[in-house]
This record gives sequence, structure tokens and C-alpha cells, in this order.
Amino acid sequence: MVGIGAGDPDHLTLQAAKAIAAADVFFVVDKGEVKQELVRLRQELIEEHGRPPYRIAEARDPERDRTAPAYAEAVADWRSRRSLACEALIRDELGEGETGAFLVWGDPGVYDSTLAIVEEILGRGQVRFDYEVIPGVSSVSALTARHRTSLTQVGRPVHLTTGRRLAEEGATADDVVVMLDAHCSFAELAGYHIYWGAYLGTPDEILVSGPVAEVADRIRELRAEARARKGWIMDTYLLRRL
Amino acid sequence: MVGIGAGDPDHLTLQAAKAIAAADVFFVVDKGEVKQELVRLRQELIEEHGRPPYRIAEARDPERDRTAPAYAEAVADWRSRRSLACEALIRDELGEGETGAFLVWGDPGVYDSTLAIVEEILGRGQVRFDYEVIPGVSSVSALTARHRTSLTQVGRPVHLTTGRRLAEEGATADDVVVMLDAHCSFAELAGYHIYWGAYLGTPDEILVSGPVAEVADRIRELRAEARARKGWIMDTYLLRRL
Ligand SMILES: C[S@@+](CC[C@H](N)C(=O)[O-])C[C@H]1O[C@@H](n2cnc3c(N)ncnc32)[C@H](O)[C@@H]1O
Ligand SMILES: C[S@@+](CC[C@H](N)C(=O)[O-])C[C@H]1O[C@@H](n2cnc3c(N)ncnc32)[C@H](O)[C@@H]1O
Repeated sequence: MVGIGAGDPDHLTLQAAKAIAAADVFFVVDKGEVKQELVRLRQELIEEHGRPPYRIAEARDPERDRTAPAYAEAVADWRSRRSLACEALIRDELGEGETGAFLVWGDPGVYDSTLAIVEEILGRGQVRFDYEVIPGVSSVSALTARHRTSLTQVGRPVHLTTGRRLAEEGATADDVVVMLDAHCSFAELAGYHIYWGAYLGTPDEILVSGPVAEVADRIRELRAEARARKGWIMDTYLLRRL
Repeated sequence: MVGIGAGDPDHLTLQAAKAIAAADVFFVVDKGEVKQELVRLRQELIEEHGRPPYRIAEARDPERDRTAPAYAEAVADWRSRRSLACEALIRDELGEGETGAFLVWGDPGVYDSTLAIVEEILGRGQVRFDYEVIPGVSSVSALTARHRTSLTQVGRPVHLTTGRRLAEEGATADDVVVMLDAHCSFAELAGYHIYWGAYLGTPDEILVSGPVAEVADRIRELRAEARARKGWIMDTYLLRRL
């Protein structure tokens, strides 16, 4: 499981590049759902760092797979369906003694399901393998670096949360990083400064910072416009109490 | 300002390697205070990725510098003294059109003072330069990767804090990452699972995980023993409510 960084191909670590070079098979399980540019970045990293011959194994879309074994019927949620698709890939595509790789966006520990999926597969006990997690540059590190601001203030804590939580609970700390926010949930937080970034590390990167009260409208417009133009958006922000 | 990862030379990103290759001068300002192994790692990265001719410029120890300009007397705190030492380095050692680099442990945004120092230098307005921050793999990402656990649980927040805060406030969330803890402040948190790591990414790495009530004594012993043997320790941990 290889963290590949949050958008810039040069976010890749030497360790991740070596892991890509050592892989016999790359597993791809998010076909369709992941944006075209992200798929392309992954392909580029494989072409650049992979050592032929390697194979790319794509999961069939789990929702349409009518050949799944019987116990699949009992498994209702997305993660379990996906883990069954991954299990089939590993069983069918990975030879004895071979190494497979999942390339994971950002850092595999930050709001990503690949680890849980792999653990679920191992928990079922139908296939056996050992695995390693290779850390990566998260979009949080990319955000603060591009804004040239620190995530942490001296001796003070930081909260990492989701847009949904922020909308429900408000800002529960002086410093809050928000991911997975589809609704600009920061807009009411007039007492905060915001460091906002979209498409970080890519040629489309947008950065805005300032007091929320002053820049919220601009972020909302930029976000809506970019989303409409590109068809998707990924944005993250740090809130810091004024 | 180049994040170099949290201990493993292969944590270096391609972007950081390129920045090291592009630098004319490397600034070193923590002589003496940083552990020998960390100094050695930095030297190795410079030797491996630097493109000669490059220079290494070391700050004189700010506390002993009797030639500092008059306004230094008014500046009491460590950070300001250090920023004056850095300012002198930049002024004296960096030629017109040249590029200097600070190599920063882990990710520059995570409990590191280099950014604030650079901003303080620019704020004084005595020297002028532009700068860029290159993100790195933080010890938090290294910790969760080595434990093959996720930092975040699905849709749930994480708190990042210091040992001192944890000792003062207790665990203020279900998932808490703690850095800069010299006192095993987790020891009383019986309701938590701990993922603990010391010297992450280095040959001396130690990992322990389990319910705090079961593993706290072992961590305390391992920590004291390693610290006595090596003369220093760096450890980080994730607490997750049971
Ligand atoms: C499913 S999470 C994956 C996070 C990833 N594992 C990481 O370490 O960044 C997706 C969220 O990450 C954030 N994100 C990821 N890449 C980003 C980028 N290049 N620019 C801005 N936000 C990004 C957004 O908040 C997005 O909603
Ligand atoms: C001054 S902070 C610097 C953090 C750094 N910027 C980062 O991103 O990891 C030092 C603290 O980071 C943590 N740390 C840094 N490197 C570590 C390592 N290799 N293993 C364990 N903890 C580490 C420890 O909690 C230590 O007290």
C-alpha cells in the first residue's frame, strides 16, 4: 500500500518509487469513480517508476458483478463489496511469491479506506499475504506548505475533521483542518482565518487565504466555477481563530 | 525550506531531492542541540542528492555570539535569537541569485519553528528573499504506516497535540496523536488503545501497540532503556478510545 502524495508527481517519496519498481501487479479498484486526472497521475507514476514486466489488474465494478460467491449477498455496504472485489483480484491476479501494490492518494492513513479493506480481506481468511504501508505526503502537508503556514502553533493542538462534522459541531478548536467538505461549511465561522486550497500540487491549484468573513464569498465562487469547469473538485482548508 | 521525512532517508520526496540538488548553500542552525544521528542523516541526504559545488553554512551558537548587532540585546527568547543567527547566515553566506536551503525534520508544518523563524527574519526587513516550503512525510504518517493503522476513522475527527497538553487536559477526543512527550503522559488513560513508536524510520525503531493498561509499563521500560543507551529519544503515539 503505497502513499503517492496529494497531486504533484514529485510528492512521491524514494521509498514509494522503490515500491512501485518492486511491484509485479498494480491493483486498481476505483475505476469510473475517481477523476480522470487522478487516474492519469497514477498511470504516469507507474510508467515512470514501474519496472517492466508489470501488470495492471482492474477490479470489475463490484455492483455489477453477478458471479460473486454466495456470501457476497450478505455483505451490504460499499466497503465490503469493494473488499470482495479486491480479494478476487488478489486471488486471481497475484502469483505465488509476487508483489502487488495499491497506489493510495496522499497518505494512506488520512481518510482513506484501503487499509480497512485490506484488513477486512485478511480477516475473512480466504487469501493470505503480508503487506506494508508506505507513508506519503498528505493533502494537509501540501496545503500548509503551499500557504507557507504551520499546521501547528507553538505547543498548541490541531483538530483534523470532515466538512460534515464541522457543519454539525462548528469549529471545536482554535486550529482546525477540514477535509471532505462538499458544502463550504466554513462560511459561518466569522471568527477565523482560513487557508484554503483546491487541486493542491496540480497545475489547477487554487489558493485563497484571509479572514473567513472577507474571503468566504470568493472561495465559494472560485469553487463553484472550478467544479463546473472541471467536473470535480478536491479542496482542503485550515481554520485558525483570529 | 525542505521537509526531509521523519527518519528514513527514503522518506525524501522527489521534490525535496530536486530542491537539495538546486541549493547552493545549506543552512545549519541547530548544531549541538540536535542528536548526532539526525545530523548524520542530514549530511547523508546532502551528499547523496546535493549537486557540487555547494556550501554548508553553520550558524554560530546564538547564545555565545558577542558580535551581534545592538538590537539583539532586546530580543530575549530563543526563537528570536535563533532567527538573528539565521538572518546573519543568510546575509553573509547567500550570494545574489543563489538558493539556500533549510532541511527540516519530518514535515515543516508539524511542530517545527523554521517557518516562524523565516517569517520573523522577513518581518524585520533587513534581508530580502523569496522562499518555498516543500512538504515532507511527518512522524505522524510514519507512525500510522508502521503500525498499519489509519490515523482517521471513517468520518471521525483526530486531535493532534503535545505531551504537555495531554498531561494537563487528558484525552480530549476518541483519537489523539501526541508528540513532544517527555513523560509518558498516556500512562493513566486506561480507556485507550495506544500505537507507540520511537525512532521511527531508523534502524533503532521500536513499535508497541495494545491497550494502555496492558502495555504502558512495557513502553515506559523500553523508552527509559533506549533513552539511556542512545542518550536521546523521539517518540510519537496515537491513542484510540477502546
Ligand atoms: C478521501 S480523502 C483522501 C485524503 C488523502 N489520503 C490525503 O492524505 O490527502 C479526500 C479528501 O482529501 C482532500 N484532498 C486530497 N487531495 C487534495 C488536493 N490535491 N487538494 C486539495 N484537497 C485534497 C480533500 O479534502 C478531499 O475531500
Ligand atoms: C520538534 S517536533 C518535529 C516534528 C516533525 N516536523 C515531524 O513532522 O514529524 C519533534 C517531535 O516529533 C516526533 N518525532 C519526530 N521524528 C520522530 C521519529 N522518527 N520517531 C518518533 N517520533 C518522532 C516526536 O514526538 C518528537 O518529540
